[in-house]
Amino acid sequence: MDLRVVLVEPMYDGNVGSIARAMKNFGFQNLVLVNPCQIDDFGLAMASHAKDILAEARTVSTLEEALDGADLVVGTTGKRLGDEQRHLRLHLRVPCFSPSELAGKLQGKDGEIALLLGREDVGLTSEELMVCDMVVSIPTSEVYPIMNISHAATVLLYELSGLDGGKTRLASRDSLLILQDKAREILLDTRYPEHKAEFTLLMLRRIFGRAELTEREVNTLLGVLKNIKWMLDKRS
Amino acid sequence: MDLRVVLVEPMYDGNVGSIARAMKNFGFQNLVLVNPCQIDDFGLAMASHAKDILAEARTVSTLEEALDGADLVVGTTGKRLGDEQRHLRLHLRVPCFSPSELAGKLQGKDGEIALLLGREDVGLTSEELMVCDMVVSIPTSEVYPIMNISHAATVLLYELSGLDGGKTRLASRDSLLILQDKAREILLDTRYPEHKAEFTLLMLRRIFGRAELTEREVNTLLGVLKNIKWMLDKRS
Repeated sequence: MDLRVVLVEPMYDGNVGSIARAMKNFGFQNLVLVNPCQIDDFGLAMASHAKDILAEARTVSTLEEALDGADLVVGTTGKRLGDEQRHLRLHLRVPCFSPSELAGKLQGKDGEIALLLGREDVGLTSEELMVCDMVVSIPTSEVYPIMNISHAATVLLYELSGLDGGKTRLASRDSLLILQDKAREILLDTRYPEHKAEFTLLMLRRIFGRAELTEREVNTLLGVLKNIKWMLDKRS
Repeated sequence: MDLRVVLVEPMYDGNVGSIARAMKNFGFQNLVLVNPCQIDDFGLAMASHAKDILAEARTVSTLEEALDGADLVVGTTGKRLGDEQRHLRLHLRVPCFSPSELAGKLQGKDGEIALLLGREDVGLTSEELMVCDMVVSIPTSEVYPIMNISHAATVLLYELSGLDGGKTRLASRDSLLILQDKAREILLDTRYPEHKAEFTLLMLRRIFGRAELTEREVNTLLGVLKNIKWMLDKRS
Protein backbone atom coordinates (compact mmCIF):
# COMPACT_ATOMS: atom_id res chain seq x y z
CA MET A 1 0.00 0.00 0.00
CA ASP A 2 1.58 3.26 -1.16
CA LEU A 3 0.30 6.58 0.05
CA ARG A 4 0.50 9.85 -1.81
CA VAL A 5 -0.38 13.01 0.11
CA VAL A 6 -1.96 15.63 -2.17
CA LEU A 7 -2.26 19.16 -0.80
CA VAL A 8 -4.71 21.16 -2.89
CA GLU A 9 -3.79 24.86 -2.98
CA PRO A 10 -2.21 25.07 0.48
CA MET A 11 -2.03 28.71 1.59
CA TYR A 12 0.64 28.71 4.34
CA ASP A 13 4.13 27.28 3.94
CA GLY A 14 4.34 26.50 7.67
CA ASN A 15 1.55 23.97 7.24
CA VAL A 16 3.18 22.39 4.18
CA GLY A 17 6.44 22.03 6.12
CA SER A 18 4.63 20.63 9.18
CA ILE A 19 2.84 18.05 7.04
CA ALA A 20 6.15 17.03 5.42
CA ARG A 21 7.52 16.42 8.91
CA ALA A 22 4.49 14.37 9.97
CA MET A 23 4.82 12.32 6.76
CA LYS A 24 8.42 11.46 7.52
CA ASN A 25 7.54 10.70 11.17
CA PHE A 26 5.13 8.05 9.94
CA GLY A 27 7.26 6.69 7.10
CA PHE A 28 5.60 8.36 4.09
CA GLN A 29 7.44 10.37 1.46
CA ASN A 30 5.29 10.97 -1.61
CA LEU A 31 4.01 14.55 -1.51
CA VAL A 32 2.21 16.33 -4.35
CA LEU A 33 1.34 20.04 -4.23
CA VAL A 34 -1.40 21.50 -6.42
CA ASN A 35 -0.86 25.25 -6.96
CA PRO A 36 0.84 25.71 -3.60
CA CYS A 37 1.93 28.90 -1.90
CA GLN A 38 5.63 29.75 -2.02
CA ILE A 39 7.65 27.61 0.42
CA ASP A 40 9.86 30.01 2.35
CA ASP A 41 12.13 29.79 5.38
CA PHE A 42 9.28 29.22 7.83
CA GLY A 43 8.03 26.25 5.83
CA LEU A 44 11.53 24.77 5.76
CA ALA A 45 11.90 25.36 9.51
CA MET A 46 8.61 23.58 10.24
CA ALA A 47 9.72 20.64 8.07
CA SER A 48 12.75 20.33 10.38
CA HIS A 49 14.49 17.08 9.37
CA ALA A 50 11.98 16.41 6.59
CA LYS A 51 13.27 19.01 4.13
CA ASP A 52 13.98 16.13 1.73
CA ILE A 53 10.24 15.46 1.50
CA LEU A 54 9.69 19.09 0.47
CA ALA A 55 12.59 19.01 -1.98
CA GLU A 56 11.25 15.89 -3.66
CA ALA A 57 7.60 17.04 -3.65
CA ARG A 58 5.98 17.18 -7.08
CA THR A 59 4.28 20.48 -7.91
CA VAL A 60 1.42 20.44 -10.44
CA SER A 61 -1.22 22.88 -11.58
CA THR A 62 -4.29 20.63 -11.74
CA LEU A 63 -5.81 18.01 -9.48
CA GLU A 64 -6.03 15.65 -12.47
CA GLU A 65 -2.22 15.67 -12.79
CA ALA A 66 -1.85 15.10 -9.06
CA LEU A 67 -4.03 11.98 -9.24
CA ASP A 68 -2.31 10.45 -12.27
CA GLY A 69 -1.47 6.82 -11.51
CA ALA A 70 -3.33 6.67 -8.18
CA ASP A 71 -5.70 3.75 -7.64
CA LEU A 72 -7.99 5.11 -4.95
CA VAL A 73 -8.68 8.76 -4.17
CA VAL A 74 -9.59 9.61 -0.57
CA GLY A 75 -10.88 13.11 0.15
CA THR A 76 -10.90 14.77 3.56
CA THR A 77 -13.60 17.04 4.84
CA GLY A 78 -14.51 18.93 7.99
CA LYS A 79 -18.08 19.52 9.00
CA ARG A 80 -18.57 22.81 7.20
CA LEU A 81 -21.27 22.78 4.55
CA GLY A 82 -22.53 25.92 2.86
CA ASP A 83 -26.20 26.18 1.98
CA GLU A 84 -25.43 25.91 -1.69
CA GLN A 85 -23.80 22.54 -1.04
CA ARG A 86 -26.62 21.10 0.97
CA HIS A 87 -28.26 19.35 -1.98
CA LEU A 88 -24.94 17.69 -2.74
CA ARG A 89 -24.51 16.60 0.83
CA LEU A 90 -25.86 13.12 0.65
CA HIS A 91 -23.78 11.90 -2.23
CA LEU A 92 -20.69 14.00 -1.66
CA ARG A 93 -20.01 13.20 1.95
CA VAL A 94 -21.94 10.05 2.71
CA PRO A 95 -20.66 7.58 3.59
CA CYS A 96 -18.03 9.53 5.47
CA PHE A 97 -15.49 7.31 7.19
CA SER A 98 -13.56 8.01 10.37
CA PRO A 99 -9.76 7.68 10.13
CA SER A 100 -9.80 4.33 11.92
CA GLU A 101 -12.60 3.04 9.69
CA LEU A 102 -10.58 4.13 6.66
CA ALA A 103 -7.53 2.30 7.98
CA GLY A 104 -9.68 -0.77 8.58
CA LYS A 105 -10.99 -0.71 5.03
CA LEU A 106 -7.52 -0.33 3.52
CA GLN A 107 -5.95 -3.03 5.69
CA GLY A 108 -4.46 -5.78 3.54
CA LYS A 109 -4.94 -3.96 0.25
CA ASP A 110 -2.27 -3.28 -2.36
CA GLY A 111 -2.30 -0.16 -4.54
CA GLU A 112 -1.60 3.55 -4.39
CA ILE A 113 -3.90 5.76 -2.34
CA ALA A 114 -4.06 9.51 -2.93
CA LEU A 115 -5.04 11.33 0.27
CA LEU A 116 -6.40 14.78 -0.59
CA LEU A 117 -6.26 17.69 1.85
CA GLY A 118 -7.83 21.00 0.83
CA ARG A 119 -7.20 24.67 1.49
CA GLU A 120 -6.83 25.89 5.07
CA ASP A 121 -9.97 28.06 4.82
CA VAL A 122 -12.49 26.27 2.61
CA GLY A 123 -11.08 22.76 2.32
CA LEU A 124 -11.86 20.82 -0.85
CA THR A 125 -14.52 22.14 -3.23
CA SER A 126 -17.57 20.10 -4.18
CA GLU A 127 -16.00 19.47 -7.59
CA GLU A 128 -12.87 18.12 -5.94
CA LEU A 129 -14.86 15.92 -3.56
CA MET A 130 -16.72 14.53 -6.57
CA VAL A 131 -13.57 12.89 -7.94
CA CYS A 132 -12.96 11.09 -4.63
CA ASP A 133 -13.72 7.39 -4.26
CA MET A 134 -14.00 7.68 -0.49
CA VAL A 135 -14.39 10.54 1.95
CA VAL A 136 -12.90 10.65 5.45
CA SER A 137 -13.60 13.03 8.32
CA ILE A 138 -12.04 13.23 11.79
CA PRO A 139 -14.61 13.11 14.61
CA THR A 140 -14.25 16.41 16.46
CA SER A 141 -16.10 18.48 19.03
CA GLU A 142 -19.13 20.33 17.72
CA VAL A 143 -18.02 23.39 19.65
CA TYR A 144 -14.87 23.80 17.55
CA PRO A 145 -14.59 21.25 14.76
CA ILE A 146 -12.08 23.05 12.55
CA MET A 147 -8.66 21.46 12.96
CA ASN A 148 -5.33 22.87 11.89
CA ILE A 149 -4.60 21.16 8.56
CA SER A 150 -1.26 19.70 9.72
CA HIS A 151 -3.00 18.28 12.80
CA ALA A 152 -5.65 16.67 10.61
CA ALA A 153 -2.94 15.24 8.33
CA THR A 154 -1.07 13.90 11.36
CA VAL A 155 -4.12 12.01 12.68
CA LEU A 156 -4.73 10.47 9.24
CA LEU A 157 -1.08 9.52 8.70
CA TYR A 158 -0.94 8.07 12.22
CA GLU A 159 -3.94 5.84 11.45
CA LEU A 160 -2.66 4.83 8.01
CA SER A 161 0.91 4.13 9.15
CA GLY A 162 -0.15 0.96 10.90
CA LEU A 163 -1.38 -0.81 7.78
CA ASP A 164 0.08 -4.13 6.77
CA GLY A 165 1.26 -4.52 3.20
CA GLY A 166 -1.58 -6.24 1.44
CA LYS A 167 -2.05 -8.99 -1.04
CA THR A 168 -5.37 -7.82 -2.46
CA ARG A 169 -4.47 -5.56 -5.41
CA LEU A 170 -6.97 -2.73 -5.85
CA ALA A 171 -8.38 -2.05 -9.30
CA SER A 172 -6.61 0.82 -11.01
CA ARG A 173 -8.29 4.19 -11.07
CA ASP A 174 -8.31 4.06 -14.89
CA SER A 175 -10.44 0.91 -14.77
CA LEU A 176 -12.82 2.57 -12.32
CA LEU A 177 -13.14 5.59 -14.61
CA ILE A 178 -13.96 3.30 -17.57
CA LEU A 179 -16.56 1.57 -15.40
CA GLN A 180 -18.07 4.93 -14.56
CA ASP A 181 -18.13 5.95 -18.25
CA LYS A 182 -19.93 2.74 -19.16
CA ALA A 183 -22.45 3.28 -16.40
CA ARG A 184 -23.03 6.84 -17.63
CA GLU A 185 -23.60 5.57 -21.19
CA ILE A 186 -26.26 3.19 -19.98
CA LEU A 187 -28.01 5.82 -17.85
CA LEU A 188 -28.15 8.14 -20.86
CA ASP A 189 -29.24 5.38 -23.20
CA THR A 190 -32.08 4.36 -20.90
CA ARG A 191 -33.28 7.95 -20.53
CA TYR A 192 -32.49 8.07 -16.83
CA PRO A 193 -33.55 11.56 -15.59
CA GLU A 194 -30.67 13.87 -16.50
CA HIS A 195 -30.82 15.87 -13.27
CA LYS A 196 -30.34 12.68 -11.26
CA ALA A 197 -27.66 11.10 -13.42
CA GLU A 198 -24.60 12.85 -11.99
CA PHE A 199 -25.69 12.20 -8.41
CA THR A 200 -26.38 8.58 -9.14
CA LEU A 201 -22.97 8.20 -10.79
CA LEU A 202 -21.34 9.79 -7.77
CA MET A 203 -23.21 7.39 -5.51
CA LEU A 204 -21.97 4.49 -7.63
CA ARG A 205 -18.42 5.82 -7.39
CA ARG A 206 -18.71 5.93 -3.60
CA ILE A 207 -20.17 2.44 -3.46
CA PHE A 208 -17.34 1.12 -5.63
CA GLY A 209 -14.88 3.18 -3.59
CA ARG A 210 -15.87 1.70 -0.24
CA ALA A 211 -16.18 -1.76 -1.79
CA GLU A 212 -12.52 -1.44 -2.83
CA LEU A 213 -12.99 -3.36 -6.05
CA THR A 214 -10.26 -5.58 -7.44
CA GLU A 215 -9.32 -5.47 -11.12
CA ARG A 216 -11.09 -8.76 -11.67
CA GLU A 217 -14.32 -7.47 -10.13
CA VAL A 218 -14.15 -4.34 -12.26
CA ASN A 219 -13.71 -6.50 -15.36
CA THR A 220 -16.71 -8.59 -14.42
CA LEU A 221 -18.83 -5.49 -13.86
CA LEU A 222 -17.64 -4.05 -17.17
CA GLY A 223 -18.74 -7.28 -18.83
CA VAL A 224 -22.18 -6.93 -17.28
CA LEU A 225 -22.52 -3.32 -18.41
CA LYS A 226 -21.28 -4.12 -21.93
CA ASN A 227 -23.82 -6.88 -22.15
CA ILE A 228 -26.64 -4.57 -21.11
CA LYS A 229 -25.45 -1.99 -23.65
CA TRP A 230 -25.29 -4.65 -26.35
CA MET A 231 -28.87 -5.71 -25.67
CA LEU A 232 -30.07 -2.09 -25.50
CA ASP A 233 -28.46 -1.40 -28.87
CA LYS A 234 -29.81 -4.58 -30.36
CA ARG A 235 -33.38 -3.77 -29.33
CA SER A 236 -33.31 -0.16 -30.35
CA MET B 1 -13.11 10.52 32.58
CA ASP B 2 -11.55 13.98 32.82
CA LEU B 3 -8.34 14.81 31.05
CA ARG B 4 -5.83 17.42 32.12
CA VAL B 5 -3.08 18.30 29.66
CA VAL B 6 0.13 19.27 31.44
CA LEU B 7 2.85 20.94 29.37
CA VAL B 8 6.16 20.82 31.20
CA GLU B 9 8.35 23.84 30.37
CA PRO B 10 7.12 24.37 26.80
CA MET B 11 9.62 26.51 24.89
CA TYR B 12 7.59 27.90 21.97
CA ASP B 13 4.28 29.72 22.31
CA GLY B 14 3.17 28.57 18.85
CA ASN B 15 3.14 24.99 20.12
CA VAL B 16 1.21 25.92 23.26
CA GLY B 17 -1.40 27.69 21.11
CA SER B 18 -1.58 24.78 18.66
CA ILE B 19 -2.12 22.31 21.50
CA ALA B 20 -4.89 24.51 22.95
CA ARG B 21 -6.60 24.38 19.55
CA ALA B 22 -6.26 20.60 19.30
CA MET B 23 -7.68 20.28 22.83
CA LYS B 24 -10.76 22.27 21.91
CA ASN B 25 -11.12 20.33 18.63
CA PHE B 26 -11.40 17.14 20.66
CA GLY B 27 -13.52 18.54 23.49
CA PHE B 28 -10.89 18.99 26.22
CA GLN B 29 -10.31 22.22 28.13
CA ASN B 30 -8.15 21.66 31.20
CA LEU B 31 -4.64 22.92 30.42
CA VAL B 32 -1.83 23.32 32.97
CA LEU B 33 1.49 24.95 32.12
CA VAL B 34 4.62 24.29 34.20
CA ASN B 35 7.13 27.16 33.85
CA PRO B 36 6.01 27.97 30.32
CA CYS B 37 7.52 30.39 27.83
CA GLN B 38 5.75 33.73 27.40
CA ILE B 39 2.58 33.35 25.29
CA ASP B 40 2.75 36.08 22.66
CA ASP B 41 0.79 36.97 19.53
CA PHE B 42 1.96 33.92 17.58
CA GLY B 43 0.75 31.58 20.30
CA LEU B 44 -2.64 33.29 20.34
CA ALA B 45 -2.83 33.11 16.54
CA MET B 46 -2.08 29.38 16.56
CA ALA B 47 -4.79 28.85 19.19
CA SER B 48 -7.25 30.40 16.72
CA HIS B 49 -10.72 29.93 18.25
CA ALA B 50 -9.28 28.23 21.34
CA LYS B 51 -7.92 31.37 23.01
CA ASP B 52 -10.30 30.65 25.91
CA ILE B 53 -8.33 27.47 26.67
CA LEU B 54 -5.14 29.56 26.91
CA ALA B 55 -6.85 32.23 29.00
CA GLU B 56 -8.13 29.65 31.48
CA ALA B 57 -4.90 27.64 31.59
CA ARG B 58 -3.37 27.28 35.05
CA THR B 59 0.30 28.25 35.29
CA VAL B 60 2.38 26.65 38.04
CA SER B 61 6.06 26.43 38.88
CA THR B 62 6.39 22.77 39.86
CA LEU B 63 5.19 19.49 38.39
CA GLU B 64 3.87 18.52 41.82
CA GLU B 65 1.44 21.45 41.76
CA ALA B 66 0.38 20.54 38.24
CA LEU B 67 -0.50 17.01 39.33
CA ASP B 68 -2.47 18.01 42.42
CA GLY B 69 -5.82 16.21 42.40
CA ALA B 70 -5.06 13.99 39.40
CA ASP B 71 -5.75 10.26 39.78
CA LEU B 72 -3.51 8.79 37.09
CA VAL B 73 -0.40 10.38 35.59
CA VAL B 74 0.47 9.43 32.01
CA GLY B 75 3.86 10.48 30.67
CA THR B 76 4.77 10.76 27.00
CA THR B 77 8.12 9.86 25.53
CA GLY B 78 9.81 9.68 22.14
CA LYS B 79 12.49 7.16 21.41
CA ARG B 80 15.45 9.24 22.51
CA LEU B 81 17.43 7.77 25.35
CA GLY B 82 20.77 9.18 26.46
CA ASP B 83 23.50 6.80 27.61
CA GLU B 84 23.14 8.00 31.17
CA GLN B 85 19.49 6.96 31.09
CA ARG B 86 20.04 3.49 29.74
CA HIS B 87 20.10 1.82 33.13
CA LEU B 88 16.76 3.44 33.88
CA ARG B 89 15.30 2.31 30.60
CA LEU B 90 13.61 -0.84 31.69
CA HIS B 91 11.62 0.59 34.53
CA LEU B 92 11.12 4.10 33.22
CA ARG B 93 9.72 3.32 29.82
CA VAL B 94 8.55 -0.26 29.98
CA PRO B 95 5.78 -1.06 29.54
CA CYS B 96 5.31 1.73 27.03
CA PHE B 97 1.81 1.86 25.60
CA SER B 98 0.74 3.04 22.17
CA PRO B 99 -1.97 5.73 22.08
CA SER B 100 -4.64 3.21 21.10
CA GLU B 101 -3.53 0.80 23.84
CA LEU B 102 -3.73 3.66 26.33
CA ALA B 103 -7.24 4.52 25.13
CA GLY B 104 -8.19 0.87 25.45
CA LYS B 105 -6.93 0.71 29.02
CA LEU B 106 -8.76 3.89 30.04
CA GLN B 107 -12.03 2.90 28.38
CA GLY B 108 -14.85 2.79 30.90
CA LYS B 109 -12.83 4.29 33.74
CA ASP B 110 -13.80 7.30 35.83
CA GLY B 111 -11.24 9.71 37.26
CA GLU B 112 -8.91 12.49 36.22
CA ILE B 113 -5.96 11.70 33.99
CA ALA B 114 -2.99 14.04 33.75
CA LEU B 115 -1.31 13.73 30.35
CA LEU B 116 2.26 15.06 30.56
CA LEU B 117 4.09 16.43 27.55
CA GLY B 118 7.70 17.56 27.95
CA ARG B 119 9.97 20.16 26.44
CA GLU B 120 10.30 20.39 22.65
CA ASP B 121 13.98 19.46 22.74
CA VAL B 122 14.52 16.94 25.54
CA GLY B 123 10.99 15.88 26.46
CA LEU B 124 10.38 14.78 30.04
CA THR B 125 13.34 14.15 32.33
CA SER B 126 13.92 10.80 34.02
CA GLU B 127 12.77 12.35 37.29
CA GLU B 128 9.53 13.48 35.67
CA LEU B 129 8.94 10.08 34.06
CA MET B 130 9.43 8.49 37.47
CA VAL B 131 6.28 10.13 38.85
CA CYS B 132 4.21 8.73 35.97
CA ASP B 133 1.89 5.78 36.51
CA MET B 134 1.90 4.90 32.81
CA VAL B 135 4.05 5.86 29.85
CA VAL B 136 2.79 6.27 26.28
CA SER B 137 4.75 6.59 23.04
CA ILE B 138 3.52 7.10 19.49
CA PRO B 139 4.83 4.48 17.04
CA THR B 140 6.86 6.39 14.48
CA SER B 141 9.35 5.72 11.71
CA GLU B 142 12.87 4.89 12.87
CA VAL B 143 14.23 7.21 10.19
CA TYR B 144 12.69 10.28 11.82
CA PRO B 145 10.90 9.52 15.07
CA ILE B 146 10.83 13.04 16.54
CA MET B 147 7.36 14.52 16.17
CA ASN B 148 6.33 18.12 16.56
CA ILE B 149 4.90 18.33 20.09
CA SER B 150 1.52 19.67 18.94
CA HIS B 151 1.27 16.79 16.44
CA ALA B 152 2.03 14.29 19.21
CA ALA B 153 -0.58 15.95 21.45
CA THR B 154 -3.13 15.83 18.61
CA VAL B 155 -2.68 12.08 18.08
CA LEU B 156 -3.09 11.43 21.82
CA LEU B 157 -6.12 13.69 22.18
CA TYR B 158 -7.66 12.11 19.07
CA GLU B 159 -7.30 8.65 20.62
CA LEU B 160 -8.53 9.74 24.04
CA SER B 161 -11.50 11.72 22.72
CA GLY B 162 -13.36 8.55 21.83
CA LEU B 163 -13.57 7.23 25.38
CA ASP B 164 -16.90 6.50 26.94
CA GLY B 165 -17.60 7.95 30.34
CA GLY B 166 -16.89 5.14 32.74
CA LYS B 167 -18.39 3.64 35.82
CA THR B 168 -15.19 2.19 37.25
CA ARG B 169 -13.77 4.90 39.49
CA LEU B 170 -9.98 4.90 39.57
CA ALA B 171 -8.22 5.02 42.89
CA SER B 172 -7.02 8.52 43.74
CA ARG B 173 -3.40 9.37 43.23
CA ASP B 174 -3.10 10.12 46.96
CA SER B 175 -4.09 6.53 47.76
CA LEU B 176 -1.54 5.25 45.28
CA LEU B 177 1.17 7.39 46.86
CA ILE B 178 0.27 6.00 50.30
CA LEU B 179 0.46 2.50 48.86
CA GLN B 180 3.88 3.28 47.47
CA ASP B 181 5.06 4.67 50.81
CA LYS B 182 3.90 1.54 52.61
CA ALA B 183 5.69 -0.63 50.04
CA ARG B 184 8.86 1.43 50.54
CA GLU B 185 8.62 1.00 54.30
CA ILE B 186 8.45 -2.75 53.94
CA LEU B 187 11.35 -2.88 51.49
CA LEU B 188 13.49 -0.90 53.91
CA ASP B 189 12.36 -2.90 56.90
CA THR B 190 13.21 -6.18 55.18
CA ARG B 191 16.65 -4.94 54.14
CA TYR B 192 15.88 -5.08 50.46
CA PRO B 193 19.07 -3.98 48.61
CA GLU B 194 19.01 -0.17 48.68
CA HIS B 195 20.29 0.25 45.13
CA LYS B 196 17.39 -1.80 43.83
CA ALA B 197 14.68 -0.32 45.99
CA GLU B 198 13.84 2.75 43.89
CA PHE B 199 13.71 0.74 40.67
CA THR B 200 11.51 -1.87 42.26
CA LEU B 201 9.17 0.81 43.59
CA LEU B 202 9.00 2.36 40.13
CA MET B 203 8.21 -1.03 38.67
CA LEU B 204 5.43 -1.45 41.25
CA ARG B 205 4.08 1.98 40.35
CA ARG B 206 3.98 0.99 36.69
CA ILE B 207 2.29 -2.31 37.46
CA PHE B 208 -0.34 -0.52 39.57
CA GLY B 209 -0.62 2.14 36.87
CA ARG B 210 -1.42 -0.25 34.06
CA ALA B 211 -3.65 -2.29 36.35
CA GLU B 212 -5.70 0.89 36.91
CA LEU B 213 -6.51 0.05 40.49
CA THR B 214 -9.82 1.01 42.05
CA GLU B 215 -9.98 2.58 45.50
CA ARG B 216 -11.23 -0.68 46.94
CA GLU B 217 -8.31 -2.62 45.49
CA VAL B 218 -5.87 -0.08 46.86
CA ASN B 219 -7.48 -0.40 50.29
CA THR B 220 -7.17 -4.17 50.15
CA LEU B 221 -3.52 -3.94 49.12
CA LEU B 222 -2.89 -1.42 51.89
CA GLY B 223 -4.44 -3.89 54.32
CA VAL B 224 -2.08 -6.61 53.10
CA LEU B 225 0.96 -4.35 53.45
CA LYS B 226 -0.10 -3.14 56.90
CA ASN B 227 -0.51 -6.73 57.98
CA ILE B 228 2.97 -7.62 56.75
CA LYS B 229 4.38 -4.56 58.51
CA TRP B 230 2.55 -5.49 61.70
CA MET B 231 4.00 -9.00 61.68
CA LEU B 232 7.48 -7.69 60.84
CA ASP B 233 7.30 -5.29 63.77
CA LYS B 234 5.91 -7.94 66.07
CA ARG B 235 8.75 -10.33 65.26
CA SER B 236 11.52 -7.79 65.42
